[in-house]
Amino acid sequence: MKALVYEGPGQKSWKDVPDPKITHPTDVIVKIDTTTICGTDLHILKGDVPAVTPGRILGHEGVGTITEIGDAVTTLKVGDQVILSCVSACGKCSFCKQGVYSHCLGEEGASGIGWIFGHLIDGTQAEYVRVPYAENSVYPLPQGVNTQMGTLLSDILPTGHEIGVQYGAVKAGDVVAVVGAGPVGLASIATAGLYGPSRVIAIDLDSNRVEQAKKFGATDGVVSSAADWKEQVLALTDGLGVDVAIEAVGVPQTFEMCLEIVRPAGHVANVGVHGKSVDFDLQNLWISNIVISMGLVNTDTLGTLLKLVAQGKIPAEHFISHTFALGDIMEAYDVFGRAAETKALKVMLNA
Amino acid sequence: MKALVYEGPGQKSWKDVPDPKITHPTDVIVKIDTTTICGTDLHILKGDVPAVTPGRILGHEGVGTITEIGDAVTTLKVGDQVILSCVSACGKCSFCKQGVYSHCLGEEGASGIGWIFGHLIDGTQAEYVRVPYAENSVYPLPQGVNTQMGTLLSDILPTGHEIGVQYGAVKAGDVVAVVGAGPVGLASIATAGLYGPSRVIAIDLDSNRVEQAKKFGATDGVVSSAADWKEQVLALTDGLGVDVAIEAVGVPQTFEMCLEIVRPAGHVANVGVHGKSVDFDLQNLWISNIVISMGLVNTDTLGTLLKLVAQGKIPAEHFISHTFALGDIMEAYDVFGRAAETKALKVMLNA
Repeated sequence: MKALVYEGPGQKSWKDVPDPKITHPTDVIVKIDTTTICGTDLHILKGDVPAVTPGRILGHEGVGTITEIGDAVTTLKVGDQVILSCVSACGKCSFCKQGVYSHCLGEEGASGIGWIFGHLIDGTQAEYVRVPYAENSVYPLPQGVNTQMGTLLSDILPTGHEIGVQYGAVKAGDVVAVVGAGPVGLASIATAGLYGPSRVIAIDLDSNRVEQAKKFGATDGVVSSAADWKEQVLALTDGLGVDVAIEAVGVPQTFEMCLEIVRPAGHVANVGVHGKSVDFDLQNLWISNIVISMGLVNTDTLGTLLKLVAQGKIPAEHFISHTFALGDIMEAYDVFGRAAETKALKVMLNA
Repeated sequence: MKALVYEGPGQKSWKDVPDPKITHPTDVIVKIDTTTICGTDLHILKGDVPAVTPGRILGHEGVGTITEIGDAVTTLKVGDQVILSCVSACGKCSFCKQGVYSHCLGEEGASGIGWIFGHLIDGTQAEYVRVPYAENSVYPLPQGVNTQMGTLLSDILPTGHEIGVQYGAVKAGDVVAVVGAGPVGLASIATAGLYGPSRVIAIDLDSNRVEQAKKFGATDGVVSSAADWKEQVLALTDGLGVDVAIEAVGVPQTFEMCLEIVRPAGHVANVGVHGKSVDFDLQNLWISNIVISMGLVNTDTLGTLLKLVAQGKIPAEHFISHTFALGDIMEAYDVFGRAAETKALKVMLNA
């Protein structure tokens, strides 16, 4: 089969590799129907994730059709079309039993991180993929949701929802600010609306992105290059700050922006993947009565979000900015890698 | 009257000052029956809290008897014996209406910090004190609770409970670690037991304090000067870390210790008053699924804790290590300031 292979920092190729085989009785083999590229894949290609070794097939999102099932699989069958969770959950370890699939201790992860596709095992940017712990890690694609929409449920929508909105404890009447209106920030914006906030403020350096966020449910936008960006945000509150600030970039400046605009008794929910430490001003913050959360998605709300997407209650269609044939993945990486210029959000790759 | 007056960094005196007068119709005047000294008072004396200006009467804890009431006061009367909350709550601002008394916006605070006694207005280390917003800031002392026990409800027990145990979301079966077994850490230990944890681990550099913590309900103790302190803590869990780590010291090292021992999906509750920033390793922590909380006490659970103290369900009596006459407060400061040597916890000052 063909697959997108990481060849070491800065290098990748779309090339022939052996077809995947069932190695555990809980595996299934899936023929990919649609996959996509994540910002995390770009981090890997920069060499930021040393656990990914050359030869690894990238990708952790997708929808596909089951072509083969392991001996222990009883609830899935050949021909089922399924959404692949970016997190593989053994279903048997102490974290899985708590619903903390992100820290699954299953033997294939072993690191205690449930994100193993395109990381510790071969991923979904391929014609076929072996799916471990399949019965705990895939969701049947319902009628009325196409494979492209389904692919948004693998990672981005659950991440924005669980790590941004749920960890941020968004509730009715809240003023919510989302710093960073890229795909994951937009997923927080799109799912925050489920909880009845009074305002959802999109904050980004790029005025186009701020404007675009309104299609996803942002009620207000602030361009953060403005010298008075903070005053603009506070003016959208009672002057005391936002109830929930969601960080969806992953750099120290945006994390600090969240701390600047959150009100006492508010929440800062970090969604961004960070590459550097931040200087955390506990000498001022100890008295602030704020809560700061962070984490990897569990995808425990994947099924719920899927139902809401099927009902049209989440404006998911706007995430899809480009569509390519799977064989054109090298071009798709180029377009996605130049997102500021190409306005790419999610680039879909269809087999 | 006599009062303990801050005279600038490093200087204090017990001296004659004018009696307090009612200045607002919501005030009462209280004759102090018992007061105490807090670690925060020592910080102020070091000059760490520049908002405290020379001439300020220190102290924010105590029980006293009402001698005079303002014109607007209808639910308190002369002769009532009351516990003074360390936090003064106007009861009318948006934060008070949410129960976030710690950030009361009442005119006397103006800074948006509800702790004003011995900080922005004269405090309780005196023969008399003016109590602002009295009907929202004092609690009648019930029969069966003496003035010394009542004084523990002004700050220390609610702080350990609300900022440590409640913000840390301690629940039945949890393994809880408390880093720092001084008075506030012990208050977290003493109140964690209300929620049914499976273990409460006291961690401190001082082996005497670790041992003493068992009187307050710690099931286990770890002396943190041991090279293998972390392994000792993990061995008291399933190997994956504690559910809740409570920081009750206020230095970068102890905050980092909490991050080292908390499990994925766990909580770090910062109670300590910090004087320095910490280096926060978001590049490792973004994936950790932890929640970090911090804040100033609201004393919204003062009434609840008071009931439990009256019932003997919180081992409060062990907090009282020394008792002095109020007039001997200079000596009491000396004993409290040398706590490592004198084994002082709370030093009580009785009028």
